[in-house]
Amino acid sequence: MKLLEERILRDGKVYPGEVLKVNSFLNHMIDINLLDKMGEEICGLFSEDKVTKILTVEASGIALACMAARHMNVPVLFAKKSKTSNVSDNLYSADVYSYTHQQMNKIVVEKDFLMADDNVLIVDDFLAKGSACRGLMELIKQAGARTAGISVAIEKGFQGGGDGLRKEGVKVRSLAIIESMTDSSIAFRKE
Amino acid sequence: MKLLEERILRDGKVYPGEVLKVNSFLNHMIDINLLDKMGEEICGLFSEDKVTKILTVEASGIALACMAARHMNVPVLFAKKSKTSNVSDNLYSADVYSYTHQQMNKIVVEKDFLMADDNVLIVDDFLAKGSACRGLMELIKQAGARTAGISVAIEKGFQGGGDGLRKEGVKVRSLAIIESMTDSSIAFRKE
Repeated sequence: MKLLEERILRDGKVYPGEVLKVNSFLNHMIDINLLDKMGEEICGLFSEDKVTKILTVEASGIALACMAARHMNVPVLFAKKSKTSNVSDNLYSADVYSYTHQQMNKIVVEKDFLMADDNVLIVDDFLAKGSACRGLMELIKQAGARTAGISVAIEKGFQGGGDGLRKEGVKVRSLAIIESMTDSSIAFRKE
Repeated sequence: MKLLEERILRDGKVYPGEVLKVNSFLNHMIDINLLDKMGEEICGLFSEDKVTKILTVEASGIALACMAARHMNVPVLFAKKSKTSNVSDNLYSADVYSYTHQQMNKIVVEKDFLMADDNVLIVDDFLAKGSACRGLMELIKQAGARTAGISVAIEKGFQGGGDGLRKEGVKVRSLAIIESMTDSSIAFRKE
């Protein structure tokens, strides 16, 4: 998505450890007009997929998930990061490894909100090694529901998570895929 | 807001300890059409206030803040809950007591995103004793900016936080104010 790529080039900041900070428009301060256009784009990419629900994970996936949901006219469900290891009977739960914080987190959703007949689109801000997406797919699987696909704002293509999922047959559509980045340049994957 | 009150009566669940669960449409699963109408309502309530930015706190305030921002055409900034007590030079920070979890949390925003000339509308899902709103007002104050007002989805009127802020001259506009609630009934404040 050209508009997003241009914004990343203009306002994104690269830090050591392959960190891209886009918190001036995506995941701390939010440019709502840009996110609305991104939501519209996601709607178009999955218009044939009969999506019944969007699943994301708190906190920084919520804004984009909501804008996509508005265009697709489906509810959003956001998985919560659980502080406690004891998981009650009414929750689906999965483990997600956070490379940023170098720790395992549990994500949960209430069973009442994911149904076996749901066809679920996963939306998030970033896709790197794919740990969060795989955790969300695990929640969908536990519910007996179907993963319609995955759409993220920014995929770090060089970390391989997205391509691994594609090889397994998952429909992954990222609005911008970064092929490589250094302090002085960011290169996007060509379509 | 009649539509929200009706939804609370239909789908809200009251639990011991004055807990109202509305996670089937507001803060776990999100009815995006309802939230969009709520965002439009907030836009109307603050249309004369020259709001430049919406401030909320992760995670459950983000969805409503985004929908209000869409109608008001301003950016959203969401404060993050900080796990660490060491706060760096580039952050404004405030302490917020969570009655739900009975602990003090630190909320932070990057200094780059709150400016002295900002006129900030605070948006959140709940207002009970007002601790989160006061923390967000503290961040705005640290930036030398102005609080335009506060708008929340559901105010627990009987817990007094909203009225305390109104007495101090803060423009507080809640879309539904619960005056009292028991296991079998929820009564709203009349306008």
